[in-house]
Amino acid sequence: MKNLYAIILAGGAGTRLWPISRQLAPKQLSQITGDLTLLQDTVRRLKSSVPCDRILFVTSDNFIFEIKQQISDLVGENEADKCTYAAEKTGRNTAPAILAGALWVLSRDPEGLAIAAPSDHLILDVDTFSEAIDSSIEVANKEYLVTYGIKPARPDTGYGYIKAGKGIDGAFMVESFEEKPTLERARTLFDDGNYYWNSGIFFFSARTMVKEARKYLPDMMASLEKLDLENFSNIDEVYSEIEPVSIDYGVMERTDRAAVVPATMGWSDVGSWDSIYDLGEKDSSGNVTRGNIISIDTSDCLLIGSTRVTAVSGLKDVIVVDTEDALLVCGRGESQNVKKIVDILRDEGRGEFINHTTVKKPWGSFTVLAEGSNHKVKSIVVNPGEKLSLQLHHHRSEHWVVVKGLAKVTRGEETYLLESNESTFIPLATKHRIENPGDSLLEIIEVWYGDNLSEDDIERFDDIYGRIDNK
Amino acid sequence: MKNLYAIILAGGAGTRLWPISRQLAPKQLSQITGDLTLLQDTVRRLKSSVPCDRILFVTSDNFIFEIKQQISDLVGENEADKCTYAAEKTGRNTAPAILAGALWVLSRDPEGLAIAAPSDHLILDVDTFSEAIDSSIEVANKEYLVTYGIKPARPDTGYGYIKAGKGIDGAFMVESFEEKPTLERARTLFDDGNYYWNSGIFFFSARTMVKEARKYLPDMMASLEKLDLENFSNIDEVYSEIEPVSIDYGVMERTDRAAVVPATMGWSDVGSWDSIYDLGEKDSSGNVTRGNIISIDTSDCLLIGSTRVTAVSGLKDVIVVDTEDALLVCGRGESQNVKKIVDILRDEGRGEFINHTTVKKPWGSFTVLAEGSNHKVKSIVVNPGEKLSLQLHHHRSEHWVVVKGLAKVTRGEETYLLESNESTFIPLATKHRIENPGDSLLEIIEVWYGDNLSEDDIERFDDIYGRIDNK
Repeated sequence: MKNLYAIILAGGAGTRLWPISRQLAPKQLSQITGDLTLLQDTVRRLKSSVPCDRILFVTSDNFIFEIKQQISDLVGENEADKCTYAAEKTGRNTAPAILAGALWVLSRDPEGLAIAAPSDHLILDVDTFSEAIDSSIEVANKEYLVTYGIKPARPDTGYGYIKAGKGIDGAFMVESFEEKPTLERARTLFDDGNYYWNSGIFFFSARTMVKEARKYLPDMMASLEKLDLENFSNIDEVYSEIEPVSIDYGVMERTDRAAVVPATMGWSDVGSWDSIYDLGEKDSSGNVTRGNIISIDTSDCLLIGSTRVTAVSGLKDVIVVDTEDALLVCGRGESQNVKKIVDILRDEGRGEFINHTTVKKPWGSFTVLAEGSNHKVKSIVVNPGEKLSLQLHHHRSEHWVVVKGLAKVTRGEETYLLESNESTFIPLATKHRIENPGDSLLEIIEVWYGDNLSEDDIERFDDIYGRIDNK
Repeated sequence: MKNLYAIILAGGAGTRLWPISRQLAPKQLSQITGDLTLLQDTVRRLKSSVPCDRILFVTSDNFIFEIKQQISDLVGENEADKCTYAAEKTGRNTAPAILAGALWVLSRDPEGLAIAAPSDHLILDVDTFSEAIDSSIEVANKEYLVTYGIKPARPDTGYGYIKAGKGIDGAFMVESFEEKPTLERARTLFDDGNYYWNSGIFFFSARTMVKEARKYLPDMMASLEKLDLENFSNIDEVYSEIEPVSIDYGVMERTDRAAVVPATMGWSDVGSWDSIYDLGEKDSSGNVTRGNIISIDTSDCLLIGSTRVTAVSGLKDVIVVDTEDALLVCGRGESQNVKKIVDILRDEGRGEFINHTTVKKPWGSFTVLAEGSNHKVKSIVVNPGEKLSLQLHHHRSEHWVVVKGLAKVTRGEETYLLESNESTFIPLATKHRIENPGDSLLEIIEVWYGDNLSEDDIERFDDIYGRIDNK
């Protein structure tokens, strides 16, 4: 289908899967269930029907480099470059994101159809997902806005519900939407049989969506019409005029064109460690295990290890999730408390919910190896052909030792190459830059020394990633 | 009492408290229950009755520097230097250690009395312990070898038992010893009322112990008589002639001079994480907590954190023990499985049961911060006045950055000072040495680069700690 587009929502910053998901390393960018990140899995799922030049990512500018890197890793750099990326500084919920996407589709194809999907959900049964899309085309072409409904597996209070009404071409008119219910109400909905979980995945013709949105969100649409739909360069300016609204509240619950297509496709919003246990492949003891685990007399556990060895013994129904700087051990059925833990970390002014010890950057990544009162030790990995900004620091000097690859170093007015096992020193307040001119990874061990070891002590003069004002 | 001596057995290398205790960082040298290590706590307990110049430590030469450091930290360097230290390469069980100690006491005081005690036990009620010692003096002076018996709290299969017979001066003759019993037998012994747990703590006059040992272990005593009792310089030579035997089997079970003094002193051999939970101070939820822990809806757990944040939620009866490179999560009542875990690590050729990421050295310590295929990053902390050996490496060069204090560096024929924020490079196969000439800690970040990153790639030319042949 030549007129099928995808709008992938990738701006979320949830921490319900802490300690693996963090504010600046959210769920969609994490390998939660396998070798692919949830974002990569979302793209892989769509790839057969939607090529990259018909995919739009709407995301936070905090994540944009990492998203491009992950898509490159999945489909190659050439293909990744064909995608369109809309990166905003401040999210405005799903309505502006999906409607910006609808306008983008419309600008490319007046007959365009679009799937709008979160990037942090899991769909195990991809064939059924594809069939559900196929079976929605006719309904969408009849000017319905389709939402996919998941047959409830239990009276869950964590999802919104959709009541199916009159049948139309393999779908149903939406009779009503319900917000997350109480347990009592959830039981009623579950028993009723006509209610579905709201998956948050939509399918529509761009024209119909734009038309309906103009009725119900005219101010927002007036703003969004000003968007540069080529590369969304003015998205922050446009977004600044817009109030945050969800597409459900803003359009779907108001329009009389809402339809629901039931789909049993192994869907999960992967909202908790409990759901990841439920989704995971169990071994003969009922354990779901990943990473560096030694397990004795243990059953029905979710065990996610890190580089450190994790040994468990005599456990049942326990969740263990280990990362370099934070460990979660939690009873199964209790993983909703992760939110409380993150709140405690935030209240205590601790950083373990913001980032991992390894932080992704447009040029590669760095890992904090050690921190003292006046020094910090980092490993810096620079991808082939990439370069850090030309920068200086007012409060620290830096010692660099190259341990892998080749570095091109700018220091003051000099430029020189450093091979592995060579080192250099960057004095305080001296402009400097690291570049990887080679075709393999460059790794540098960096020792900072100074009276202020904040990542914010950086003045940038030139940056190939446009980060002159920000990081 | 001027004639009271202590023989402290500190050579054990148990791993039942893995991951905190390791082969080269054993239980007695670890902070298991509080701010003091078990060794320090053992010395503190004796200090009021036994001054340092009447204390002998019998230990492995692997631990000797760390033991001296810990005693220094507890009582000051001057006092620590008054202790006597017998350091052997290969332990021979408790009989040679205690009998060497008895000979040492006898050489100093023909009327000497001695407490012989393991350094890895816990005694919560120190007053009762002191009273038990006091009440044993008369019995010991009547040529009895006293062992302290603990009133059994349960039919435990993990201890040896002592049957008390005829009463003598507030003590009892020992009627018999029993090895660790079956559960059925343990129940019988528990119900009997005349049986005590064998604490492994002894009290005797040195003369009586030597006299009895000459009867039952004449060959061993003949060898031990050759010991240099001033500083045990020839202990390895003497030990090489000796078969390993326990004092229980070698003397106590054979002599007719064995007596038992019952003592209810909050004793534990701290043999498992379960016992540490039992001993620990519980909070209102029944948790025993130490370190960096966030706990929600959790009860009756032992939670020992590390530098990393450990968050627990919805747990009951779980043991969590975290360290830099290894994590244990285990059901309460299951901690005997730690032994199996250590066996698995050993079988898999992994190092996590041998040492911690921070390794104690005579001159201070080092911590491995990162390891790659051809590089390793370490933090080196050198205590004031100490110096590493004069050494070279055949397979690696080293980059050093001083981040704290002042370093005196020897490199080839040169000697120079490095201040904080200065660096130097040690090429392959170049003799070098680090010394801390200052009166505060020296910290160096060291980056190794080479094709063999083993700690064994070291050739030593001079060492103030006598480590020319070994590490």
